Amino acid sequence: MTSTFLDELATALPDLRLLTDAADRESYRRDETVHHEPGLPLAVALPQTTAEVAAIMRLATQHRVPVVPRGAGSGLSGGSAGVDGALTIALTHMNAIIEIDRDNLCVVVQPGVINAELKAAVAAEGLFYAPDPASYEFCSIGGNIGTNAGGLCCVKYGVTRDAVLGLEVVLANGRVIRTGGRNVKDVAGYALTQLIVGSQGTLGIVTEATLRLRPAPPPRVTMLAFFPTLDAAGTAVAAITRQGIEPCTLELMDRVTIAAVDDWHHLGLDRSAAALLLIESDRPGDAAADELARADACCTDAGASSIERAATEMEADWLRQVRRLAFRAMERLGISRMEDVGAPRSRLPELLAVIERVAAVHDVRCGTFGHAGDGNLHPTFVWDRDDAAAEARAQAACEDLYRAAIALGGTVTGEHGIGAARRPFLVEQVGADAVEVMRAIKAALDPLGILNPGKVV
Amino acid sequence: MTSTFLDELATALPDLRLLTDAADRESYRRDETVHHEPGLPLAVALPQTTAEVAAIMRLATQHRVPVVPRGAGSGLSGGSAGVDGALTIALTHMNAIIEIDRDNLCVVVQPGVINAELKAAVAAEGLFYAPDPASYEFCSIGGNIGTNAGGLCCVKYGVTRDAVLGLEVVLANGRVIRTGGRNVKDVAGYALTQLIVGSQGTLGIVTEATLRLRPAPPPRVTMLAFFPTLDAAGTAVAAITRQGIEPCTLELMDRVTIAAVDDWHHLGLDRSAAALLLIESDRPGDAAADELARADACCTDAGASSIERAATEMEADWLRQVRRLAFRAMERLGISRMEDVGAPRSRLPELLAVIERVAAVHDVRCGTFGHAGDGNLHPTFVWDRDDAAAEARAQAACEDLYRAAIALGGTVTGEHGIGAARRPFLVEQVGADAVEVMRAIKAALDPLGILNPGKVV
Repeated sequence: MTSTFLDELATALPDLRLLTDAADRESYRRDETVHHEPGLPLAVALPQTTAEVAAIMRLATQHRVPVVPRGAGSGLSGGSAGVDGALTIALTHMNAIIEIDRDNLCVVVQPGVINAELKAAVAAEGLFYAPDPASYEFCSIGGNIGTNAGGLCCVKYGVTRDAVLGLEVVLANGRVIRTGGRNVKDVAGYALTQLIVGSQGTLGIVTEATLRLRPAPPPRVTMLAFFPTLDAAGTAVAAITRQGIEPCTLELMDRVTIAAVDDWHHLGLDRSAAALLLIESDRPGDAAADELARADACCTDAGASSIERAATEMEADWLRQVRRLAFRAMERLGISRMEDVGAPRSRLPELLAVIERVAAVHDVRCGTFGHAGDGNLHPTFVWDRDDAAAEARAQAACEDLYRAAIALGGTVTGEHGIGAARRPFLVEQVGADAVEVMRAIKAALDPLGILNPGKVV
Repeated sequence: MTSTFLDELATALPDLRLLTDAADRESYRRDETVHHEPGLPLAVALPQTTAEVAAIMRLATQHRVPVVPRGAGSGLSGGSAGVDGALTIALTHMNAIIEIDRDNLCVVVQPGVINAELKAAVAAEGLFYAPDPASYEFCSIGGNIGTNAGGLCCVKYGVTRDAVLGLEVVLANGRVIRTGGRNVKDVAGYALTQLIVGSQGTLGIVTEATLRLRPAPPPRVTMLAFFPTLDAAGTAVAAITRQGIEPCTLELMDRVTIAAVDDWHHLGLDRSAAALLLIESDRPGDAAADELARADACCTDAGASSIERAATEMEADWLRQVRRLAFRAMERLGISRMEDVGAPRSRLPELLAVIERVAAVHDVRCGTFGHAGDGNLHPTFVWDRDDAAAEARAQAACEDLYRAAIALGGTVTGEHGIGAARRPFLVEQVGADAVEVMRAIKAALDPLGILNPGKVV
């Protein structure tokens, strides 16, 4: 059956790049998720047009062959990981920036565009595309849409869903719909745009997106605050939220992460600190310094041991770099499983305590960093390669962590997605009735279940 | 069958307020939509708890009796208008503000809370609930959620969907789900919160909402600019958008509306002007005056004939009041059909020209005002009571207007909803395949079709 499918695909779309060699298929097996064992793609298609994607889906429907849509493969939930017997559709060749519409402050792109390339292209026009996942230099906009990706500045500017005005989507049956457009207000019918964002390719394949831009904000004012305890750092973050201060960056790193970065790059960080916060403001004129002064007061009140303010743009870049290096620094220590829990912002100190506790209880090394201003943290569990016992302890720690986050009114995933890796915990978080609603929606849009099976719901 | 249903309802829920008198049912027949002929409710239920709503839906499912969820009845699309033989469920008695959560900048409310009451309650805590439909003094939060309502300040702060963090929803079958919560980032599963917002009670009944708050912004700086032509006003708005100026209010009124307001309240407005813009900034400190100066320059460049800056808060209130009076002033002139078209912001001058053209071609009086900064206008057609020929001409004008808005890449409804009144045009705007997807979602959540039948899809 599947070889008939591939033959018909090759016949119907002679110009389609279709990889069927074992080595090629193997190279599209994984995304960046260490804690998920993916399957081997049947083949890998690299379409260049929406019409090709639509034709693939018509044939996939006809032959009931499952497909896995894939962007840059940098996902952290197994969302684009291979499925045995499924055709992986990599959108990397659909990577055009179709139009920068200055007059309507939006941009029309294909899904394969790299986030950083989009940022650079619109910055050249004095504009700003806000969502900035840590992987922005190599993740694709299509993947960002699939996971509703966040990033560092979404504490002020919102997540990917907030930036998507419209989509072109190829449905399971190969039909193509357009949702939304260039209107900032539009209530005609159901919110299909918002529904597709975050659905990780389980409801349709995004082949074009219209994204909201902003005028480029003023240069940032940047500071680092060091704290003697994790709790003090969490308290400072909660105070900043409560006081309505709106920094454009409010990031945390714990002692383990600080040490990992400093060991790697010898930056002279204060390794006696239990945590640091990276705080930035991009308000206009003096308002930025005023805002940082208010944040500074929150940090001092919470017991900060030292605070460094960047005096130059180069110093600011350096302070930011400390945070950007966090995950790669942890990866140097061994196999690194990055988690993505969240909680209401007032409960950040409790979430930090929970992370410390589960790591201690299960005896697994853990460094935590992340988007403290959103209540979204990336505890990263590390173990030596081939230490199966440690890997099992990390798994047990994660399960405890998920349940604790849910108990705090939080989430098992703030920005990486349920994907394949967190699927057993969706029902624990949202309840059986809500999962049933999600499955009914999935069945409505994909009655044969061929779109990214085994993911999300 | 239906009388059995009402008997069982009364038996199962002896404390439920259930109106069955003809006069009571008649008074819940209409919302504020003049161009839709509603049906007569079978009865009207006024539940006080989620459990009551759930019990009503279980019985409605069992007896296959349709229901119409209703807020304050101020809708402008027939969304909460009565349906013959359907039980209207008015949520007006579920109007508690359950919790103001300062620490997480959110508030938990029941759907019957009036928008203005919510604003006042959070303002007392130094907080700000942004969405502000013109009807904010009497519309309910549940209705705002149903229509994804906009308002004056959504040009800066977003629409209702942007303010909803979580929902409690009673499904068609009477089960109760919770979506989202107090997390600002959460990607666990599909975007049910965003899907329910704007679905006008066709997918479920919202019985509780968690809404995002902001710190109260600084006082506004306010100006009015008068223009010799509509096109000049539209050009000024397009320039303001293009330059990335972000006022918190950017509203337009045309000559007819200016005259209607001035005839009523004798405010000494410049009646020779073809249009005015109300522009406000709430940026901190000097940034507000700077922003208005930039907007002022856009207006002057576009050919503004005069510009008035409010010197005091009382003067600012007065300028705002000019805009707030627009619809009521039009209503004094006869039967008033307020429309709600939108277009990408750069095309505002074209949309204004289209409105003038369709009114002239069909010989119907029209005054236009609205949210120019969002590209969302409310052309309001007026005719004498019992002038059936004029009403028919207005209908023809609206149909032309809808098609022209769609041709501009715009929308037939920016914030009022498809409801019952605009349903024939949904397919023209979004296409048959997208409507089919919406209907599949509707069938998935409401397989018996008992939730607000004949609305939206």
